[in-house]
Amino acid sequence: MTRPLHLNAFLMSVGHHEAAWRLPESDPYADVDVEHFKNLARIAERGKLDSVFLADGPVLWDQVGRRPSGVLEPTVLLTALAGATERIGLIATASTTYNEPYNLARRFASLDIISGGRAGWNIVTTAGLDAARNFNLDHLPAHRERYERAAEFVDVSLKLWDSWADDAVLADKANGVWGDAAKIYPPAHSGRFFRVAGALNVPRSAQGRPVLVQAGSSANGRDFAARYAEAVFTAHQTLADAQEFYTDLKRRAAEHGRDPEHVKILPGIVPIIGASAAEAREKEAELNRLIRPDYALPQLATLLGIDPSELRLDAPLPEHLPDEDEIEGQKSRRTLVVNLGRREKLTVRQIIARLGGGRGHLTFAGTPVQVADAISSWQDAGAADGFNVMAPVLPSGLTDFVDQVVPILQERGRFRTEYTGHTLREHYGLLRPENRNVPVPALL
Amino acid sequence: MTRPLHLNAFLMSVGHHEAAWRLPESDPYADVDVEHFKNLARIAERGKLDSVFLADGPVLWDQVGRRPSGVLEPTVLLTALAGATERIGLIATASTTYNEPYNLARRFASLDIISGGRAGWNIVTTAGLDAARNFNLDHLPAHRERYERAAEFVDVSLKLWDSWADDAVLADKANGVWGDAAKIYPPAHSGRFFRVAGALNVPRSAQGRPVLVQAGSSANGRDFAARYAEAVFTAHQTLADAQEFYTDLKRRAAEHGRDPEHVKILPGIVPIIGASAAEAREKEAELNRLIRPDYALPQLATLLGIDPSELRLDAPLPEHLPDEDEIEGQKSRRTLVVNLGRREKLTVRQIIARLGGGRGHLTFAGTPVQVADAISSWQDAGAADGFNVMAPVLPSGLTDFVDQVVPILQERGRFRTEYTGHTLREHYGLLRPENRNVPVPALL
Repeated sequence: MTRPLHLNAFLMSVGHHEAAWRLPESDPYADVDVEHFKNLARIAERGKLDSVFLADGPVLWDQVGRRPSGVLEPTVLLTALAGATERIGLIATASTTYNEPYNLARRFASLDIISGGRAGWNIVTTAGLDAARNFNLDHLPAHRERYERAAEFVDVSLKLWDSWADDAVLADKANGVWGDAAKIYPPAHSGRFFRVAGALNVPRSAQGRPVLVQAGSSANGRDFAARYAEAVFTAHQTLADAQEFYTDLKRRAAEHGRDPEHVKILPGIVPIIGASAAEAREKEAELNRLIRPDYALPQLATLLGIDPSELRLDAPLPEHLPDEDEIEGQKSRRTLVVNLGRREKLTVRQIIARLGGGRGHLTFAGTPVQVADAISSWQDAGAADGFNVMAPVLPSGLTDFVDQVVPILQERGRFRTEYTGHTLREHYGLLRPENRNVPVPALL
Repeated sequence: MTRPLHLNAFLMSVGHHEAAWRLPESDPYADVDVEHFKNLARIAERGKLDSVFLADGPVLWDQVGRRPSGVLEPTVLLTALAGATERIGLIATASTTYNEPYNLARRFASLDIISGGRAGWNIVTTAGLDAARNFNLDHLPAHRERYERAAEFVDVSLKLWDSWADDAVLADKANGVWGDAAKIYPPAHSGRFFRVAGALNVPRSAQGRPVLVQAGSSANGRDFAARYAEAVFTAHQTLADAQEFYTDLKRRAAEHGRDPEHVKILPGIVPIIGASAAEAREKEAELNRLIRPDYALPQLATLLGIDPSELRLDAPLPEHLPDEDEIEGQKSRRTLVVNLGRREKLTVRQIIARLGGGRGHLTFAGTPVQVADAISSWQDAGAADGFNVMAPVLPSGLTDFVDQVVPILQERGRFRTEYTGHTLREHYGLLRPENRNVPVPALL
């Protein structure tokens, strides 16, 4: 095997394409059907994928007319998937802006223990005024402030996850001493955003603590990822952009004293798979024909920071748009979309179609060999350690990927044919972290 | 069948008796072993019990030396149990003092959907300075203030659970309209403690919304229960106390315009079951011999609001103790313990033994027939609609109850021999609530 490839299945109701639910094959009630998600997780595990992943926000996304809008809370849903699978990793998004560290660190620790060390946390700061208004606020906290809070939140979480030594439980029945109080380390944290005195009431897991994942690509996001992230989900439309990001993030991680190998970078890909390239393109066109632009247009306007009336479907983007510094959320996604529109001289209608599949992630329509080639070439070109696989239609798009693309990657020696580890850290080639409270024994 | 009896299995690591973990049969690592809890839930379901229940607090309870101290977060753990069972209800404790309504209502709604309408929420306000100090506070909010926040928290949660009409999803593939925006009802809540603008991103469940459970017996707690609770867990040492509570709470519920039948009252019972009464008493004595009073004494002192140095193991309680009004947490439990000590003229050591089994709940050692008689007689005497069964040792105490006591209650026609419903509401004889945002159609 060359460098090991990592594959994550990003699950989203009946698929990432916004019109997927309109296909005859799609169950429009699957957005909140646990059996649907269990089936997806089992398909991904059959393909020996590293992990499955759920996005999240504490808000009703979008217009409910547009697409299935039920979103089961991910730490809860992943716990259900833990019981339906044996080996695959389970990554949930959760917000540092709208949670408290003690509660959230504990929930991830619980999922991590229940799943036998398979949990990961995609750390997000949650853009959008609508979410803020569900949490006592009438404004979205500033981007920088959200990231400063996120950093302290993760610092506290790391302390909480290390609040029990691995050997804190004595289980001494004869003397009636269950745990060793000297091996419990209360965080006693007092910072700008949080004061958290006491130890977690959950011990360390098989993998020590959940894997930290991050997906923000703004300057603040990159710096945060370089400090904390062990896996990074990212979105790029071109190989050059992906290479720039990959090189930059590995360099930033090294500057923080980290081994760049311990930060796995996974761009998103929306693979549309056909027996021929023409069949794949026709699948994509069929999905795009099912998009209702009247739903998509207001959301594009929000992303760009303008009023919907400023956009016309059959014209290019307006010449003057607020730039990244002037908006408070999804900064890098906004820039990606503007660059895409300008570079390829797309109309608003065409941009909406391009975003309909993967919201800015690379959509790739082709045969299984072409998809495998695309994955291999980005990996070889230093643009990716693996991919975040965003099937346009679920379950069929994931089944196609697992049954048709994965075997090619396996034959090429690029992807595992069996799990060699049991924890998410083992799948991603990450070390089990030592408890930072426990002194390293001196060498004799 | 006479009035239907309701039975809830209160699960707690290897049992409610604080020394249960020291028995040869107990696995001292079971506190965080999901397979242990799945086994318990399956045993309870085999007995056709209404529900299982998990207590909780966002804090490391107690001294870790004393007993198993890992507590997996209950909404997460119950989701795992949902996948291991088919019918039994799943009740989790969660704090209104240390959560946000949008997040918590969503998590319970998610559990409710994943379990097919089997979720219940035991609403607590969380006593104790230690918990407060895990959430940016250096003092415990006052008892009254905690209950005022709890009331508004539940009001917001009810609005959130009603934020989708039952028929909000159109799934109109032909026209590309998934949901009906006119059938989404954002709470637009603005109160003293919370402002929550937007709709939940989870639809209603099979039972409409989670069952509301409450367990506080102070004056504030009783009033709160009378307004909101559909099931009440309570602790009494004597039949007379239980009757007083039962009568009072049903009366208060009626005063709030509610049908008292829709508030099920379940006192706790710690059944210690033996083939003979003598065998049962010896089991109890064996467990009590394994208590280490040096661990229990400081906790008793905290409950009483005094310094541990004021207690002597072989003397009665001090004559002068702070009364209920002067302490800020577990008010009714404090009064119960003081009354128990005075009434039965117990030493501190004896009180510790009596609390070791069920922390103030009634411990009853006897044969299966005697346990069934005790349950029947309290029900007949107007003291209980059912019981919160707190096995002293798990799983064996629950197995004994299910295999030896339940069949007697079934033979007597007091308890179901098969589930007749699928949701927790159906088990408890509660109606599925209408969505309060949806106008009731006029009769023709």
